[in-house]
Amino acid sequence: MKKYCFGIDIGGTTVKCGFFNTDGEVLDKWEIKTRTENNGVNIVPDVAAAIKGKIAEKGIDMDEVAGVGVGVPGPVDEDGNVPVAVNLHWGFVPLSKELSELTGLPVKVGNDANVAALGEMWKGGGVGYHNVIMVTLGTGVGGGIIINGQIVTGSNGAGGEIGHIHVDDAIEETCNCGNKGCLEQVASATGIVYLAKKKLAASDAPSVLRDGEVSAKTVFDAVKAGDALAQEIAEEFGRYLGFACANIAGVVDPQVFVIGGGVSKAGPVLFDYITKYYQKYAFSACRNAKFALAKLGNDAGIFGAAKMVL
Amino acid sequence: MKKYCFGIDIGGTTVKCGFFNTDGEVLDKWEIKTRTENNGVNIVPDVAAAIKGKIAEKGIDMDEVAGVGVGVPGPVDEDGNVPVAVNLHWGFVPLSKELSELTGLPVKVGNDANVAALGEMWKGGGVGYHNVIMVTLGTGVGGGIIINGQIVTGSNGAGGEIGHIHVDDAIEETCNCGNKGCLEQVASATGIVYLAKKKLAASDAPSVLRDGEVSAKTVFDAVKAGDALAQEIAEEFGRYLGFACANIAGVVDPQVFVIGGGVSKAGPVLFDYITKYYQKYAFSACRNAKFALAKLGNDAGIFGAAKMVL
Repeated sequence: MKKYCFGIDIGGTTVKCGFFNTDGEVLDKWEIKTRTENNGVNIVPDVAAAIKGKIAEKGIDMDEVAGVGVGVPGPVDEDGNVPVAVNLHWGFVPLSKELSELTGLPVKVGNDANVAALGEMWKGGGVGYHNVIMVTLGTGVGGGIIINGQIVTGSNGAGGEIGHIHVDDAIEETCNCGNKGCLEQVASATGIVYLAKKKLAASDAPSVLRDGEVSAKTVFDAVKAGDALAQEIAEEFGRYLGFACANIAGVVDPQVFVIGGGVSKAGPVLFDYITKYYQKYAFSACRNAKFALAKLGNDAGIFGAAKMVL
Repeated sequence: MKKYCFGIDIGGTTVKCGFFNTDGEVLDKWEIKTRTENNGVNIVPDVAAAIKGKIAEKGIDMDEVAGVGVGVPGPVDEDGNVPVAVNLHWGFVPLSKELSELTGLPVKVGNDANVAALGEMWKGGGVGYHNVIMVTLGTGVGGGIIINGQIVTGSNGAGGEIGHIHVDDAIEETCNCGNKGCLEQVASATGIVYLAKKKLAASDAPSVLRDGEVSAKTVFDAVKAGDALAQEIAEEFGRYLGFACANIAGVVDPQVFVIGGGVSKAGPVLFDYITKYYQKYAFSACRNAKFALAKLGNDAGIFGAAKMVL
């Protein structure tokens, strides 16, 4: 009888570890350092040791553990191999096989953004839904696509790479991906600053944003305070993101968009700007899609990882 | 032991019927009239009679039949109900239940565009792939999304409604869906004529298109004959469709785009124009996606329907 599982979220600095019961309750949560030196050769053994240590500490039987789910910052193929993960200093790592051999447990591996989407569906902003789009607005724009409760990995591990949906031919700056006009350039925290600086330079209109640092936070604080220029910036942000979400809906017709990442701390005010343009651009049958805030924060990864093995 | 199955494609004028073995060979193929009068009340009994008649004619046992797959021109919910199908004059029809009761066989139901996509994956332009986008360029633009061999139906039955992806803010005409600037307005047979007429009106440049009827066929015939103005029209068409395909790839990262419908009769010349812009707009990891022509024509529906029950 399986009673427990592990959810592991490997990041470039720390590995987040969760010990769960099969109902999805976190029984224990801790972090270990990600040792990236020597091409990250220690990372998998460190994770295995953390799992075996926890099993010993809790005095549970191996047979009671359903398995280990792992999220990694990089593409993952169908066999649980990681072709490359820059932030971990990894070249090809057969992660599922290695970790399974070291722990004696079944292992499932997924890309961290996709795994976080699964976590939000299971225990966060997407609870009650099985067709979910996770939109993570951080330094960049990440995404995860869940259809019928399953992660859409994509043929090249690029399923849910919605930050690189093309949204504007007029943008002359180059995105980190090499293209121009990507969603990430105008809807991430960095993108909002880009929009703000352009807007500030284009007029002499008064704005609290002219005093002090411009960030996604100061922009949305100003929006809430009624600053007209900040609201124009939010309109632009909302138009780009609403447009992208509408086009995503034209492909997979989700029940809910869950918005996470640092920018989502601005709260429900975001929806005032996104849904207006979503409604404008979306195919009529898809206009009933919900928009919700992510709830699990940095824990989405361990939840989603755990869910993969249940 | 299951040896046979039926694939049925219900259209507004005729019902296409296929009798298959479980390897996917068509053993028999025929059509019956779609009787849409009286809210299409005869359609399901007519289909049931066609199936039972064929079973009797072939002298096979009911136990040898795996089931009946059906494609319908409208949305389909998870239980095989059809909420509405305008072309069949149907309101709500519990198709799966009704046809199953009338035939004594298991029945699976899908939207016709999605079902055709499954057919092309199984026995047409998408053979060998399991992540397939079908793009049907006919009077409108339809689509079907196949992920891991499964149809993406969508929460409202609108999965794959790619004809209503927004591609241009500058289009002032209204699409049949009520929005403005949909892919269908510029990439369908009708859309190509729209682009051609605008292009012809905007200049005095010579073109064979100035003599006689303008259609998707005459435009692409002129493209192949080296007509410069026709080639400009094809560039516009390719830019819109390449852009839409790139954004679809940013969501689900498919292996192949299969292009079907009347416009696809133009042949591989289409790819010269589509892939150029696909490469420009797509996220780098997705640029290896293939483009292929559909192969099954009007039979894609019966093949996909059959595949649903195997």
